[in-house]
Amino acid sequence: MDIKQYLKTQAEFINQKLENQLKEGIPQKLFDSMHYSLNAGGKRIRPILVLESAKVCGKENVADILDIALAVEMIHTYSLIHDDLPSMDNDDLRRGKPTNHKVFGEAIAILAGDGLLTYAFEKISSIKNIPAEKLVRIINILSHNVGIYGMIAGQAADILAEKEKSFTDIKFIHENKTTKFIMACCQIGAILADAEDTKEKALKEYGYNIGMAFQIWDDILDEIGETEKLGKTVGKDKENNKLTYTSIYGIEKSKEIAKKHIEKALKSIEIFENKEILEKLAKYIISREV
Amino acid sequence: MDIKQYLKTQAEFINQKLENQLKEGIPQKLFDSMHYSLNAGGKRIRPILVLESAKVCGKENVADILDIALAVEMIHTYSLIHDDLPSMDNDDLRRGKPTNHKVFGEAIAILAGDGLLTYAFEKISSIKNIPAEKLVRIINILSHNVGIYGMIAGQAADILAEKEKSFTDIKFIHENKTTKFIMACCQIGAILADAEDTKEKALKEYGYNIGMAFQIWDDILDEIGETEKLGKTVGKDKENNKLTYTSIYGIEKSKEIAKKHIEKALKSIEIFENKEILEKLAKYIISREV
Repeated sequence: MDIKQYLKTQAEFINQKLENQLKEGIPQKLFDSMHYSLNAGGKRIRPILVLESAKVCGKENVADILDIALAVEMIHTYSLIHDDLPSMDNDDLRRGKPTNHKVFGEAIAILAGDGLLTYAFEKISSIKNIPAEKLVRIINILSHNVGIYGMIAGQAADILAEKEKSFTDIKFIHENKTTKFIMACCQIGAILADAEDTKEKALKEYGYNIGMAFQIWDDILDEIGETEKLGKTVGKDKENNKLTYTSIYGIEKSKEIAKKHIEKALKSIEIFENKEILEKLAKYIISREV
Repeated sequence: MDIKQYLKTQAEFINQKLENQLKEGIPQKLFDSMHYSLNAGGKRIRPILVLESAKVCGKENVADILDIALAVEMIHTYSLIHDDLPSMDNDDLRRGKPTNHKVFGEAIAILAGDGLLTYAFEKISSIKNIPAEKLVRIINILSHNVGIYGMIAGQAADILAEKEKSFTDIKFIHENKTTKFIMACCQIGAILADAEDTKEKALKEYGYNIGMAFQIWDDILDEIGETEKLGKTVGKDKENNKLTYTSIYGIEKSKEIAKKHIEKALKSIEIFENKEILEKLAKYIISREV
């Protein structure tokens, strides 16, 4: 099984399902703005992790947990729209297309982000075939890890950090801005499959380590990448003097750190039987080329 | 009982409880920014409505539903921070103090808003002494009414509206931007008190009508007010050619419309016994002076 092809097929499946998530009845430009970013493609790694984590815990039918996976991607999309804003990272391109505020203006971009975040919680709390206790737990894990003790803290620290930030800071930024959300996706998959505690813990550990490796590898790709291949403004981190793993450790040492995280990720899922996809996915993260 | 004094006492109670809602462990400036706006005072009308709606349905001990009321105020505060941004209403003053982005910069202001919204859901989903079914329903009602089918739609329509907007539009804006959230607060109070359906419906009706009156009366106050008395930039709506009830109907007719809403609000709560506070609160809305 070719993991790259598998991930592509899964991403296409998620893309299809995202296509008609938003219903009419809201101001047209707001609708268009949300729809634009939600359907701009992307790896869809977070919803895929929700589904694959559930599957590895024995969940066969993922149709009834799909709404959670889609809500997760809405939250990710919101974070990208807000991160790209002029007052934040001021990015003009995202996934090879003009960023949301470039197309719809800043006000609508901010509201589209707010809208996707809020709609994710509306969507999860509308689900009827998952017990309320489980939904509340999922909402709690998500809001914690994408909130002020997770993603938002990471983005704030990233924005606030000066050149002289220490290693603790770059680790804090990566852990909070990227890793905790990815970790939460894996944990939520386990919860949706009614997995026992050891399995939930194993998937959290897996999520943490692939999340760290993913972000460090992105730093590496950014360092050596070229704009046209990734479809976003590569080299921008360096230009802005943004702290990255490569700017502290160099490329080779950063690769070593990422590989160690993947080793840990692989170790943590040894307890599972049908772990092929998660294994290949982990290895794939540190094999990506620019 | 003097309702103005009562509301002041209740607002002070909410203020006290809001004081230590945020815990450390997040970037200091983000913490300061959220704390600044959350504790900048205000009428606290939304949390008060949650509590009073629960009380009128027979809920005696409000201590165990207080976290819901506080979460509601976090959501309101987030909406104010984002509404004030330069790309939105571009306001320099809020409650007599510099707006969040004026003090902390745009990036942190956006993140503080995102943070308060997300933390509200984290807070609600952390509550242990309310059944999960009820929490999910409350999260659903809230996220619906403050989301893309409520507050965010209203704000987007407000931003997008041009001078020539029709009456439908101004009603759409007020209903969505202000009224639905206030209606949700009253409905949530009923749910927290395990009120029967007729009572929940009555409180929704009450909330809708006081919400509309509240916003129309604000239009009137803005039209005739002076900056120093309200502590915000009064007359700004007119200056920006923003459509308001007074700009369409004039002050007298707008007052009539607001009064009709209050009549309807009063009628809807006739079924309750101890309705004195809700009655006085409704009447107070259209007695406010600049």
